[in-house]
Amino acid sequence: MPESIANKETGRVEAFSDGVFAIAITLLILDLRVPRVDEVNALVDARQVASGTALAWKLGDLWPNVLAYLMSFAVILVIWVNHHGVFGIIRRTDQAFLFWNGLLLMLVTIIPFPTALLAEYMSHGESGQFRVAALVYAGHGTLIAFAFRLLWRYAIKNGRLLLPGYDRASITRIDDRYRWGPVAYLLAFGLAFVTPWASVGVCLALAIYFSFEGFLGKRSKA
Amino acid sequence: MPESIANKETGRVEAFSDGVFAIAITLLILDLRVPRVDEVNALVDARQVASGTALAWKLGDLWPNVLAYLMSFAVILVIWVNHHGVFGIIRRTDQAFLFWNGLLLMLVTIIPFPTALLAEYMSHGESGQFRVAALVYAGHGTLIAFAFRLLWRYAIKNGRLLLPGYDRASITRIDDRYRWGPVAYLLAFGLAFVTPWASVGVCLALAIYFSFEGFLGKRSKA
Amino acid sequence: MPESIANKETGRVEAFSDGVFAIAITLLILDLRVPRVDEVNALVDARQVASGTALAWKLGDLWPNVLAYLMSFAVILVIWVNHHGVFGIIRRTDQAFLFWNGLLLMLVTIIPFPTALLAEYMSHGESGQFRVAALVYAGHGTLIAFAFRLLWRYAIKNGRLLLPGYDRASITRIDDRYRWGPVAYLLAFGLAFVTPWASVGVCLALAIYFSFEGFLGKRSKA
Amino acid sequence: MPESIANKETGRVEAFSDGVFAIAITLLILDLRVPRVDEVNALVDARQVASGTALAWKLGDLWPNVLAYLMSFAVILVIWVNHHGVFGIIRRTDQAFLFWNGLLLMLVTIIPFPTALLAEYMSHGESGQFRVAALVYAGHGTLIAFAFRLLWRYAIKNGRLLLPGYDRASITRIDDRYRWGPVAYLLAFGLAFVTPWASVGVCLALAIYFSFEGFLGKRSKA
Repeated sequence: MPESIANKETGRVEAFSDGVFAIAITLLILDLRVPRVDEVNALVDARQVASGTALAWKLGDLWPNVLAYLMSFAVILVIWVNHHGVFGIIRRTDQAFLFWNGLLLMLVTIIPFPTALLAEYMSHGESGQFRVAALVYAGHGTLIAFAFRLLWRYAIKNGRLLLPGYDRASITRIDDRYRWGPVAYLLAFGLAFVTPWASVGVCLALAIYFSFEGFLGKRSKA
Repeated sequence: MPESIANKETGRVEAFSDGVFAIAITLLILDLRVPRVDEVNALVDARQVASGTALAWKLGDLWPNVLAYLMSFAVILVIWVNHHGVFGIIRRTDQAFLFWNGLLLMLVTIIPFPTALLAEYMSHGESGQFRVAALVYAGHGTLIAFAFRLLWRYAIKNGRLLLPGYDRASITRIDDRYRWGPVAYLLAFGLAFVTPWASVGVCLALAIYFSFEGFLGKRSKA
Repeated sequence: MPESIANKETGRVEAFSDGVFAIAITLLILDLRVPRVDEVNALVDARQVASGTALAWKLGDLWPNVLAYLMSFAVILVIWVNHHGVFGIIRRTDQAFLFWNGLLLMLVTIIPFPTALLAEYMSHGESGQFRVAALVYAGHGTLIAFAFRLLWRYAIKNGRLLLPGYDRASITRIDDRYRWGPVAYLLAFGLAFVTPWASVGVCLALAIYFSFEGFLGKRSKA
Repeated sequence: MPESIANKETGRVEAFSDGVFAIAITLLILDLRVPRVDEVNALVDARQVASGTALAWKLGDLWPNVLAYLMSFAVILVIWVNHHGVFGIIRRTDQAFLFWNGLLLMLVTIIPFPTALLAEYMSHGESGQFRVAALVYAGHGTLIAFAFRLLWRYAIKNGRLLLPGYDRASITRIDDRYRWGPVAYLLAFGLAFVTPWASVGVCLALAIYFSFEGFLGKRSKA
């Protein structure tokens, strides 16, 4: 296949993947529902508070949804940035690469489900329910981290898909950094058996770390 | 029309189609709904089980939705890959091609409906309802397979839309492979009259086969 | 502005517009809801029919939703094709053009609302309700047709935005064809006062005509 | 990094951002729900009006949703146009820029929430509730205006990300115009404490002003 066609090919896979990332990240907000007037008025009657206060309380009750939203937004954005990095070093795709990419996209489109599950059971559920929700959330994060790792390892294996003359040292450096993602999510998954809050804490720490990593100047893109 | 304008033209049709594919594939997850806290607590009361167990059961009850989700995700991804293949060999579009492409896109955007129907009636419905749902799902799959076949046949007919100098032998080879899709879905449609499970089994087998086909090295993209 | 930057500029406006078209056309399906098991079982009890028959009847009851879906899908696709045509003849954009384009996009994103309204009241509503729904649907179609006409007129006015050396005769020819869209939708709007079915009939005829127009060979794209 | 790779890089960030803008702007309509037949018929019984009149009244009751929709549509479109402007003057991105861009995108995807909140409480809520909703809406607008300002300031700082030879005078001119956005939204936020209607009025005036600004010829794009 001539170089220009291969470029068009990877370009289209990248554009399709970007579309899926952009939609998945935007759909997350659909699970953040506005409290209805009648619910708020019921709270006014039940607690004898001012109507504005009741709405403010109801909005405050959405904190698990907001927290889950922020974590999952960060996860998708970080995967997108790294996915972007993978496509920056390859010059062509093959069927197996498309399969691994498809698997990653599937897991990304699923993210709204564990996000909504965690939001529903983090504050409203009993501790046993919260544990199940945290296991699903961290377990899904683990699957994504492994799927990305598989995609990355396949992309760099033997240099078959790589741009000619790409700097091997920088790939090794990136490879070292990516190594820790699956391990950290696996830890979060295990912690959910002990205490769900620790599991959510690790997921949150990962989301924050990866979001601010570049900003704090640890990565440079020259 | 100069070559560069024709390229921009097919590029825009391809990009629009990709957008539709990406959205349709991402919207599928919206039908996978998180069990509500009150439903789970009702189950706790009814069955006297631990609250975490009850949530796990409720999540397990979602298996028809997960199965339908996975099948339809695979269907859309496979159509996207093949659609991609069609645009890789054409150099221009015409009005009839746009019509067939529009018909295919319409059928793809409809996929969430038969998917949700199958999920709703696969386990919760009586067998007569399951049969109707399987007929709709396999029937819709048949329509998509035929629409793709029409698009493909139109694209290669007389070489009018093809890139100059494209390898006819490889087109014939692809043509032979595409021949089986409509037949297989028609079989799944017919089987739904006999037993819905067999119909779903064929649809599932098709989704798995097409997903792993390239991975198993049967197709090579050089 | 150098030519290449102007091209990138129109390219980005076109890509953003295409994204909006692709999402609006795919979201339409969200209003086609699967009948729930309990509704179907209630019908089984009420009418003493087989469970499969009851589901088939319930699916048949969705015909107004399917009809509205098909019409609106065709409307968005036709606008997309024509929008595409506008961008094929311009070489740059300006602020007023962006404003008219934004207005058209806004009207396109609104389409799911009149579509759902028409579907809800075409068969379930009383005739007075159907009339209101048909007025809204045809009225919205009229607004879209006028917005497109404004965009098109602005694009070709004085040749300011046009590609240099573009064939004026072909623009005049297209201009003649576009002239009828607003008039036809205005007719559909007026007919809704007399009888809503006639209004829907005109909208349907327009959708069918524009969809098949190219296919029937009346337009050639060379 | 060679120039062509840097261009591809900013191009992909721009395309991803455009996808998010396009989806967020199209999802807004999902909060505009069609009145159900049974609600309308209940109104017919309660007020003894014709069925068509009852539907027209119910549609009229949606005015807060329509107003909120129009304001938020305009906000997203204006951010998109300005975002577009930022990418028109930069030649590369870095990690901190990606972080600020990600923050802006997050705030944009959240827009459907304050929009639905304002629509729910503008007419149906008591004045205390409307105040809270207006505070959230204007507060969110303020965050977006500041996030955009941060992105813009970072992009032009020291000329690190700028296209070589870009006209500093025109950047200073744009910089002066962008200065007022955060201030105006902060004013709207403060006014919500006094009277929510004034706050909404300012937000509406801003949306209208920014939408028509270019159209009225105050900005020229040469």
